[in-house]
Amino acid sequence: MVAAAKRDTYTPETLLSVAVRVFNDRGYDGTSMEHLSKAAGISKSSIYHHVSGKEELLRRAVSRALDGLFGILGEERAREGRAVERLEYVTRRTVELLMAELPYVTLLLRVRGNTDTERWAMERRRDFDHQVAELLKAAVAEGDLRTDVEIRLATRLLFGMINSVVEWYRPEGRGAVDNQEVSDAVVRLAFDGLRRQRG
Amino acid sequence: MVAAAKRDTYTPETLLSVAVRVFNDRGYDGTSMEHLSKAAGISKSSIYHHVSGKEELLRRAVSRALDGLFGILGEERAREGRAVERLEYVTRRTVELLMAELPYVTLLLRVRGNTDTERWAMERRRDFDHQVAELLKAAVAEGDLRTDVEIRLATRLLFGMINSVVEWYRPEGRGAVDNQEVSDAVVRLAFDGLRRQRG
Repeated sequence: MVAAAKRDTYTPETLLSVAVRVFNDRGYDGTSMEHLSKAAGISKSSIYHHVSGKEELLRRAVSRALDGLFGILGEERAREGRAVERLEYVTRRTVELLMAELPYVTLLLRVRGNTDTERWAMERRRDFDHQVAELLKAAVAEGDLRTDVEIRLATRLLFGMINSVVEWYRPEGRGAVDNQEVSDAVVRLAFDGLRRQRG
Repeated sequence: MVAAAKRDTYTPETLLSVAVRVFNDRGYDGTSMEHLSKAAGISKSSIYHHVSGKEELLRRAVSRALDGLFGILGEERAREGRAVERLEYVTRRTVELLMAELPYVTLLLRVRGNTDTERWAMERRRDFDHQVAELLKAAVAEGDLRTDVEIRLATRLLFGMINSVVEWYRPEGRGAVDNQEVSDAVVRLAFDGLRRQRG
């Protein structure tokens, strides 16, 4: 439920967070300006005062997730040191971003590609995945990762585990989990697996 | 594209496979009997000759996936031996089932719970997850799995990796991958992780 909001309390930021929630609930295709107007409690013309339409809201929302992801790759610990340590750092930070920006990342992961904005978002996401695959490749070359799983397949399964967190992670209330515990668990299982280490 | 099908070539089985495809494309909620009739190339009354309605088709479809999953738990290698080996076996067989019954398992994973059938399917899926979590618990008790990741979290991440295969696995054509390679990769990464084993 959205409490009735006064028109002048609206900022592009709050409009965006309402739009992302509606996109995630109804799907982007299934969302009309009418739905957004009702959910935000402001008129369609007030929305058009802020943005050109729903595609601009989508672009802003997925940009927030994408900027977060590419921001991680630009951080010092993602750029310097052994590849396996950079990969571990990127894995941990990606899980943290996913939890911190849950609705934005959820939306990005669901984008399917019917509009230019959706295709652009998918392309950028592939670019991020590709850069992580390059990190895996470098870590294999440095002798730190196993060689019996093909790089592209390993990258997909790594993201499969990371991205699955959006399916059940809830920041508060019933089912809430500790963020640090989640990111530790993903890093431990992704790099060393379920099995107890011997020796 | 569905080739125009002669009415009398229809069996409950072929109708089911058409319905599952439409449910996966449009979402179960977004699918009407009209959509099913068009996709199948037969009249609505012909469909009602086979089934009581779309909810029965959903029930049959998710039952096929669920029967497959519970069938795995009943197999000898899932019931006898060390828990870690049973868990490894169940992991491999679940990935195999997912690839063999891709549309049915995809539908099951997307079910959200607006009808009795959906709620029943989610309950059965939770029951399966719970039985796998018990296997993890037993394997921890036998000293074979790491103890620094909480069981429920480990179970979720294991299924996160396994289930993510539906996102990109294609049995044929462009992007086709070798089934054996996929199930080997999931088992290797889930149990021993990306890192190269030392010693």
